[in-house]
Amino acid sequence: MSQNTDDVVISSRIRLARNVNDIPFPSRLNDERASLIARKVYDSLQAGDSYDLYKMSNISEIDGNVLMEKHLISADLLNNNQFGAAIINESETVSIMINEEDHIREQSILKGFNLKEAYEKINAVDDCIAARIRFAFDPRLGYLTSCPTNLGTGLRASVMMFLPGLSITKNLDSCVNAVSRLNMTVRGVYGEGSDADGFLYQVSNQKTLGVSESEIIQSVETSINHIVDTELRAREVLLRNNETELKDRIMRAWGVLTNAYTLSTDEFMRLTAFVKLGVYYGLIRVSDRARLEKLITEAQPANLINISGKQLDAAERDLYRAAYVGKTLRNLGK
Amino acid sequence: MSQNTDDVVISSRIRLARNVNDIPFPSRLNDERASLIARKVYDSLQAGDSYDLYKMSNISEIDGNVLMEKHLISADLLNNNQFGAAIINESETVSIMINEEDHIREQSILKGFNLKEAYEKINAVDDCIAARIRFAFDPRLGYLTSCPTNLGTGLRASVMMFLPGLSITKNLDSCVNAVSRLNMTVRGVYGEGSDADGFLYQVSNQKTLGVSESEIIQSVETSINHIVDTELRAREVLLRNNETELKDRIMRAWGVLTNAYTLSTDEFMRLTAFVKLGVYYGLIRVSDRARLEKLITEAQPANLINISGKQLDAAERDLYRAAYVGKTLRNLGK
Repeated sequence: MSQNTDDVVISSRIRLARNVNDIPFPSRLNDERASLIARKVYDSLQAGDSYDLYKMSNISEIDGNVLMEKHLISADLLNNNQFGAAIINESETVSIMINEEDHIREQSILKGFNLKEAYEKINAVDDCIAARIRFAFDPRLGYLTSCPTNLGTGLRASVMMFLPGLSITKNLDSCVNAVSRLNMTVRGVYGEGSDADGFLYQVSNQKTLGVSESEIIQSVETSINHIVDTELRAREVLLRNNETELKDRIMRAWGVLTNAYTLSTDEFMRLTAFVKLGVYYGLIRVSDRARLEKLITEAQPANLINISGKQLDAAERDLYRAAYVGKTLRNLGK
Repeated sequence: MSQNTDDVVISSRIRLARNVNDIPFPSRLNDERASLIARKVYDSLQAGDSYDLYKMSNISEIDGNVLMEKHLISADLLNNNQFGAAIINESETVSIMINEEDHIREQSILKGFNLKEAYEKINAVDDCIAARIRFAFDPRLGYLTSCPTNLGTGLRASVMMFLPGLSITKNLDSCVNAVSRLNMTVRGVYGEGSDADGFLYQVSNQKTLGVSESEIIQSVETSINHIVDTELRAREVLLRNNETELKDRIMRAWGVLTNAYTLSTDEFMRLTAFVKLGVYYGLIRVSDRARLEKLITEAQPANLINISGKQLDAAERDLYRAAYVGKTLRNLGK
């Protein structure tokens, strides 16, 4: 594993797709049986971890968007406001979506490059649920899922990566092509993955069938290590070939983020990406890099409104974002 | 006089145009007699103030541009490298140009709105010179000058003004029209007076003939007071109508100036103008406003090279400017 993995990998996620035996998949299930799943799953979880149950039928728009911005639930779940639900632990490392595409989607999300630990964590959750619910399972095919792309292990291992070097030097496409030959998918976390999206990309396995869980994780790890190495090389090339322009862009990003009076989400994402790059190069010193990472979630619209404790319209939100981001970054020091 | 004159008026200048009797004006003078003028004027000055004599024939390009950027000499003087000279006192409040358009142009430059004091100062200098040199003078017309626009008193009273309010609200033209009816001229100090020129304007009298020195100064003062009042009203309107945009622009200007890695003269001028406006509005606090004003001269190309003590090419100068400006402003505090 590359030594500087933490400079590139933001978080690791394992998702297991599961369905309840003998009832139709969520897209065809419109009765009481759907609403019972959430309760059954919730009851199956060990008392050791404290879970909250969120029903999409009565969650507020802000609270729903807060969870989505934290990548704990999907837009699809939020839209299934009849039977959709989410069960999330206190530390937000486990999120179980109920009646999204499948009846049950168990997810574990950990900071950094931690797929194996994430798998162990969600495997334990899966064991608890399996003890109470009989999953749709075929001895030959494995776990049965709503979409055939998840058939078999039902496992998706995905890693959120910060790829400014490959993006700016325009080497991302060739890197994506290389890992797609290893059955990996790369997509932008926020939109298309442009600089306005903070150069954040999700890399995950495409194949779930005919391979074991550990083989999937192993192959994703191999791909990620390759991307990490390529990204770090690209960052060196970038600095060597565009030193003045790059340093200027980084330092101005810090200057604007710590002083702006109003700040949109897009601009925040774009500038913060350069600040993170500045931290990597040692041009900017922050006392707590995890706090900087957390700020990216906090500065999203719904999370920001949640933090403010007020109703804010779009213009007020941009003012609040500028003040909140400025204060947080100034405290993190340079 | 308006109370907040110092927020608008940067400096006051009185210039007296004088010529030596019985020798041709500089444009037609190409012999020994031209080179004698500088020495004669230099010798006439009282020992109380310490003067330096700079001959354009042997001043370095950098040193010549340093004086020009400080507004102590003109481009025309710098171009007359055969007989041109400047005699400047230590505090740089008096500069006498020799063989520019006229044989002798005596100037006194003081900070703030101080035309009367500037006139007294240059009048004393003029008395010293007049004691040794017989000026070209006609009892009916007054002092004879190379260009008829300076005939009579030979006096130009000019004031450097910072006019962001009138410029941004696009009310400068009507203000210029109003004062031109009072025989005043308004022009950009650096180029056309756009934001890249720091919103700096020079306001001066057009008429030199048929009026007394004190009448000229009085009429310039009246015009300046009018412009100051108009400018301050424009600043209030600007803030009221564009609060978010203006505050954002001001705070970002501070953020960029205190953090940029490279900085051109144009961008420095543009951003510094907004910082000054921020100081006026109380959004930015600086411990020493005169130091901020001085920085505007220091950041000009030749002055910057002079301060660095090094040969800097254009790219190196922009790096040095960013570092120098950033350090100075951070020290001035917010």
